[in-house]
Amino acid sequence: MAQSGRKPGRRPGPNETREAILAAARELFAEKGYDGASIRAIARGADVNPALVHHFFGTKENVFIEAMRLPFNPAELLPLILETPNDRLGETLIRVFLGIWSDPERRAPLVALLRSAMTNEQAATMMRQFVSTALLGRAAELRGIPLLKIDAAIGQMIGVMLLRYVIEVEPIASASEEELIELLAPTLQRYLC
Amino acid sequence: MAQSGRKPGRRPGPNETREAILAAARELFAEKGYDGASIRAIARGADVNPALVHHFFGTKENVFIEAMRLPFNPAELLPLILETPNDRLGETLIRVFLGIWSDPERRAPLVALLRSAMTNEQAATMMRQFVSTALLGRAAELRGIPLLKIDAAIGQMIGVMLLRYVIEVEPIASASEEELIELLAPTLQRYLC
Repeated sequence: MAQSGRKPGRRPGPNETREAILAAARELFAEKGYDGASIRAIARGADVNPALVHHFFGTKENVFIEAMRLPFNPAELLPLILETPNDRLGETLIRVFLGIWSDPERRAPLVALLRSAMTNEQAATMMRQFVSTALLGRAAELRGIPLLKIDAAIGQMIGVMLLRYVIEVEPIASASEEELIELLAPTLQRYLC
Repeated sequence: MAQSGRKPGRRPGPNETREAILAAARELFAEKGYDGASIRAIARGADVNPALVHHFFGTKENVFIEAMRLPFNPAELLPLILETPNDRLGETLIRVFLGIWSDPERRAPLVALLRSAMTNEQAATMMRQFVSTALLGRAAELRGIPLLKIDAAIGQMIGVMLLRYVIEVEPIASASEEELIELLAPTLQRYLC
């Protein structure tokens, strides 16, 4: 599959192997969803040993993040969330979110993922499972926040990012980041604390 | 164009004329956006007198609603908003929104519109202008609510509807309407009052 262009007899370099794993992962996540794609099956798709997948990426979550070219790693946001005092949680989260979305290069893969989730049932399954497993479960566990409230907070942020950066509805498309923080932080605060 | 299948010499019936107007409108809204498509130009596209467009639909807003098969008319929601006491505005709006989105037949054209606005710059322009002209301006005028706060409220509702009905993230996909009202009404209330 992804390696079919390789010359027979030549051993693939680490970059080729890495790319072959990511190509196999993209295919498998799209086909089986996030939960259904195991590291073992990804390794089989790339024709490598599962230990190599662990060696390159560590966890399935990391394979997903790299395969989908996500511009942030939920696991890296967790320490930030843990260190933020309760009364600043809403503001901190909206700042992190805006920091990612305001950069066109980091925004593009998120818009692409959202777009496919809206037009394709399999992509929706993949995104749903990743959000549940990697984002919701973790955050809920960490601070004991009910999942339904986290969904409401994610809904608020995704909806505003859509209006601001994709559909570009005014005045929210031109509002300053400080205006948005003042507007949205109390909402997130109410959901998450 | 839309009438090219009509037999020459036969006068089109009212249904045919209506459909020809809607077909011309869909084409023109997609091409010129909501603001750029005049009733005069729509009439020209359908090869009818502009007075006929007024006769069938009244306003450009109504032409848009019918052409896009929107499941609600913003103008009809206004009396409801006007009659709602301030302290029940959030709850009333989320009930209206859920009433529309929970019905698969009424939801489908909204998801289709959102989907095209996410993938197509012209569709985004069309949606942006319609939201600004027909929804935001009106509501702001009526109750003196700052537009930025209305954007935040629309963002909250669109984001939650996306997660609940399109991506189907749990637990918000299975939450009861009463749970959602309890969750979201205070947020809308804070933005709109």
